Amino acid sequence: MIKIAIDAMGGDFAPQTIVEGVNKSIAKNDDLELVLYGVPEEINKYLVPSDRVSIVSALTKLDMGEKNPILAIRRDKELSLSKAFQAVHDKVCDGVVTAGPTQGVVVAAHMIIKKIPGMDRIALCPTLPKMGTKTKLLLDVGANVELKAEHVMEMAKFASVYAELVLGRENPLVGLVNIGSEAGKGRAQEKEAYKMLSECKDINFYGNIEPKEMLLSDCDILVASDGFSGNLVLKSIEGTAKAMSSVMKEEIKASLGGKIGYLFMRKNLRNLKNRMSGDDVGGALIFGVDGVVVKAHGASNAYATSKAIDLCYRAVKSQFLEKIKKGLNNEL
Amino acid sequence: MIKIAIDAMGGDFAPQTIVEGVNKSIAKNDDLELVLYGVPEEINKYLVPSDRVSIVSALTKLDMGEKNPILAIRRDKELSLSKAFQAVHDKVCDGVVTAGPTQGVVVAAHMIIKKIPGMDRIALCPTLPKMGTKTKLLLDVGANVELKAEHVMEMAKFASVYAELVLGRENPLVGLVNIGSEAGKGRAQEKEAYKMLSECKDINFYGNIEPKEMLLSDCDILVASDGFSGNLVLKSIEGTAKAMSSVMKEEIKASLGGKIGYLFMRKNLRNLKNRMSGDDVGGALIFGVDGVVVKAHGASNAYATSKAIDLCYRAVKSQFLEKIKKGLNNEL
Repeated sequence: MIKIAIDAMGGDFAPQTIVEGVNKSIAKNDDLELVLYGVPEEINKYLVPSDRVSIVSALTKLDMGEKNPILAIRRDKELSLSKAFQAVHDKVCDGVVTAGPTQGVVVAAHMIIKKIPGMDRIALCPTLPKMGTKTKLLLDVGANVELKAEHVMEMAKFASVYAELVLGRENPLVGLVNIGSEAGKGRAQEKEAYKMLSECKDINFYGNIEPKEMLLSDCDILVASDGFSGNLVLKSIEGTAKAMSSVMKEEIKASLGGKIGYLFMRKNLRNLKNRMSGDDVGGALIFGVDGVVVKAHGASNAYATSKAIDLCYRAVKSQFLEKIKKGLNNEL
Repeated sequence: MIKIAIDAMGGDFAPQTIVEGVNKSIAKNDDLELVLYGVPEEINKYLVPSDRVSIVSALTKLDMGEKNPILAIRRDKELSLSKAFQAVHDKVCDGVVTAGPTQGVVVAAHMIIKKIPGMDRIALCPTLPKMGTKTKLLLDVGANVELKAEHVMEMAKFASVYAELVLGRENPLVGLVNIGSEAGKGRAQEKEAYKMLSECKDINFYGNIEPKEMLLSDCDILVASDGFSGNLVLKSIEGTAKAMSSVMKEEIKASLGGKIGYLFMRKNLRNLKNRMSGDDVGGALIFGVDGVVVKAHGASNAYATSKAIDLCYRAVKSQFLEKIKKGLNNEL
C-alpha cells in the first residue's frame, strides 16, 4: 500500500478541486491510500467515501498570499500544509501533495520534512509541457535565488536518478541553461557549472543549451545555474504561451475564414490549450528533502490534482528517493 | 536628406536580402539616401539603380560564427561592418543597419562608433512582437553580462526618450523584470535597481514585473537587471513561440477537422506567424553609442531588412539621440 498525505485546503479552489482529484485518483489505483488534512465538514461535501481515504482534522490553511510563511508555519500548528508535511516527516505517509503557495511549500519542506543528509540545497523542479518529443524537467526554478556550481551538479544528479526511475528515461540528457551554446559562455558561475557537469561521471551531459532551443531539444533535464535564472525562464515560457494564445484568438477572430476554420478545429485547439496548460504533468517536485513532495499548481482543477497525486504515487512506488539516499550514503 | 550606412554583406542571406530590402526602403522614402558597404559586383546583382543609393567597396565580411570579433575587427580593415560603422563615427552617415553577428555588432559599436560621453554602458534593445495592446522594448539582452543598478537606470532613461520620440509613446511605462511583483523581490541587484528606478523622476516606473505577465502588460519598456537575465528572457520567448508553433502544427494535423479548419484559417495562421516572427519590428537598437545603430536579425529576409532600415530612418529623423546628448550635457 502506498500512503500519500493530501493538503486538502491548499490551492485557489480548495478543498473542492482537491477532493475531486482525490476521488479520481483513488478510483484508479488499488494500492493507493490517501490521508486528507483539512476541515472535515468542508472535505466531506465533495468526498466520495472510500475505505482507502481518511481525514485528519486541520482547521487552518496557509494563505495563498502569505508574505511570511516561516512565521506563519512556526506560529500556527493547525495548518493543513504543516500537518500533511509532518506526516511525511514522521513516516506516517510516504509522500505529500499540495497546491499551496510555492514559497510556503518550499519553506515547509525545509522546516518540517527537512533535507536529506548529504544534500546541500533543495530544488523546485517542474515538468515542462510536452513540446518536441518529450517532457522536460527544469530546475531550480526558485527554491534558491543563488547557487554554487556544486549545488547545480548535485541537482543534476538528483534529477537524473528521478528521470530514469520515475519517468523511465534511459541515460537522461542534462543541458545547462545558458546564453550561448559553446563552452565558455555565460558568467563565472555558468563556466564553473559547465566544468563540473562535464567532468561528472554520474550524468549524461549535453553541454550548454540556449532557451531558444531547449524546448524542442533532446534534453530530459534542464538545469539553470541559479533559481533566479530558472524562475525567469519558467515564467517567460508561461507568459509567452499565454500571450501567444491571446494573439492567436485575435488573429482567428479577425476574419470570417478564421471563424469558420475555428469551428472545424475547435477540438484541436482545445487539445493544444490543455497540452500547454501543464495539467497533464501534475506538478513540480521538491528535490532534496527526505520525502516525496509534489507541489501542484495553485489553480489546479480536479484533473490536474489527480495528475499530481498520480505523479506522487509513481514517484513513491519507484523508490527513487531510497536509491538516491543509498548513493549519498556510499559517498559519505 | 537622411543618410544611412548599410552593411550589405552581414547576415545569413547577404547580400541578396539586404540589397532587396534597400530597394524596398529607397522606393518608400524620398528623403532617404543609402550607402552600401560591400563587394560591388555582388551588390550590383540585386540592386535596383537609384541616384540615392551608392556603393563603397568593402571586400571582406565578419563571419557569422566569428569567435573573436575584437581581434577580427582590429586586424581586418576591409570588413563591411567596420567600414559602415566608421562612416557613422565620421558623421558621413547618420545611422547604420547591419544583420551581422550580434557580438560583433556590439563590439564594433564600442570600438568604432564609441560611447556617448556620460554613458557608462551600451545596451542591446530589441522590440518584442506586438502582443496585448503594444510592442515592448526589452533591454539589455546581452551587451553586458553584468550590470549595476545605476546602469539599469541609465538604460531605462535612454529607452524612455527613445520610446517617446521614436515610438510615439506618451510617458512610457518602465517595468523591472523580476521573479516577483512585490517590492523587495529578487537578488540584491534587483532590490537596488528597484529603489533607484522608483526614486528616478525622469521615468514612469511601473514596479517589478514578472515574465509571466510582462507581454500582455501595459509596460512600454522592460528592463532586466543584467544582460544575462535579459538574454535568457528574450530567448525563452523566442523558444516558446517556436515550440508552440510546432505543437500547434502537430495538433492541427492530428484530425480531419483540424486539416479542414486549417484550409479556412490558413491566412490567419500566416498572420500569426508573421506577427511572432519579429520581422515587423525591424531589429534591435544599440543604445549608448554616438550614432543610431540598428541590428537586424541574422536571418532577415528582404521585408525584415527594409523594416530595419525604416526603423533606423525614423530614429534618425526623430533626433532622439541629440535630445539625449543634450540632456546628458546638462547633467554634466
